[in-house]
Amino acid sequence: MDALLRRNDDVARGLRDAWTRCGTLAVNLLSGPGSGKTALLEASLPLLAERHRVLVLEGDLETDRDARRIHRAGADVVAITTGGTCHLEAGLVERAWGAAPGGPYDIVFIENVGNLVCPASYDLGEHLRVVLLSAPEGDDKPAKYPKAFRTAHAFAVTKIDLLPHFDFSVERARREALEIQPRLEVFALSARTGEGIDAWVRYVERAAAERIAIPR
Amino acid sequence: MDALLRRNDDVARGLRDAWTRCGTLAVNLLSGPGSGKTALLEASLPLLAERHRVLVLEGDLETDRDARRIHRAGADVVAITTGGTCHLEAGLVERAWGAAPGGPYDIVFIENVGNLVCPASYDLGEHLRVVLLSAPEGDDKPAKYPKAFRTAHAFAVTKIDLLPHFDFSVERARREALEIQPRLEVFALSARTGEGIDAWVRYVERAAAERIAIPR
Repeated sequence: MDALLRRNDDVARGLRDAWTRCGTLAVNLLSGPGSGKTALLEASLPLLAERHRVLVLEGDLETDRDARRIHRAGADVVAITTGGTCHLEAGLVERAWGAAPGGPYDIVFIENVGNLVCPASYDLGEHLRVVLLSAPEGDDKPAKYPKAFRTAHAFAVTKIDLLPHFDFSVERARREALEIQPRLEVFALSARTGEGIDAWVRYVERAAAERIAIPR
Repeated sequence: MDALLRRNDDVARGLRDAWTRCGTLAVNLLSGPGSGKTALLEASLPLLAERHRVLVLEGDLETDRDARRIHRAGADVVAITTGGTCHLEAGLVERAWGAAPGGPYDIVFIENVGNLVCPASYDLGEHLRVVLLSAPEGDDKPAKYPKAFRTAHAFAVTKIDLLPHFDFSVERARREALEIQPRLEVFALSARTGEGIDAWVRYVERAAAERIAIPR
């Protein structure tokens, strides 16, 4: 297992170097199933596309449903189907990147498979790792899934339009996440109403402009 | 990996035999994070406790938060903390079973860690495997996470009190799940309102009475 992880990290380093040299910002989106990774991309892509060339590498265990959603949202997309494997690996990402239909790209989003556990252990060469947690999942999750939060640069609370229906405190989730990883930028947003999407998009654009490559 | 899985399956077979001999029904609850496994137990335990002795083996990556919730619900509980591992294994379950505070038990629930992928590959000696999917997660998940559904005996759509806020069709989810695994018993329920809980509890009681041991 350690040898596999080392091999993964070697490939990931190569990817990150290549992206950094191209001026491409790579963002890895990580969450459990149904937290709204695809919906966040659908809401962000129209805003980002005004000034940026964007590619989405779309991971799924099975089916290309999410890739088709991204395609409908107007972005370049490459589907990565893991065939049951519980996380993306850098080698799969490298191959998908090689199959990109265009380029150069300013931003590449990597949507991981829906799993709040295993993907946290795999560097995909990203500059920014973003962990999502939706209001319906409960605000007790950061301490229960600490590695995803410890290895992230940003934390997005999603589906906040549903907060009235849940005993979910954004403040409680934020505090608990920051105890695990103090550097986290925290966002609260709703892909449905658009609330918070502007701040999130500005964060991604700033990172792309500054070529932020936060040390891992 | 294959050797690990074989070892797991050996331990699981031993556990299942032991439980079957004791007249104990073992139920493995499996879902992504925040789908409501603990909430379903909290809603079921008071009804089951009227006529059954129930134990909960409560899996989590970190923290004993869920175990404390079950304890407050009045059931015997043993916490299993995997320390970051993405699934429960039969060996961990065997050890937790050995640490049970009482007994004999009519029903033992095993709450897996919140992960819709990896736990599907690990037999824990259960007689019944139940996969949960909450309305906020989206009805497109069965085909995207097929192994969890293929290996289950029952499928519970949870949080149906929230259906008015989502484009989630119980019928669509049911149909897709049944295409993957035709034997599935399908439930639609809400731990919050109690809707559907009676039917679910009756199903568990019937399985306990008949010592259902469906071949895997």
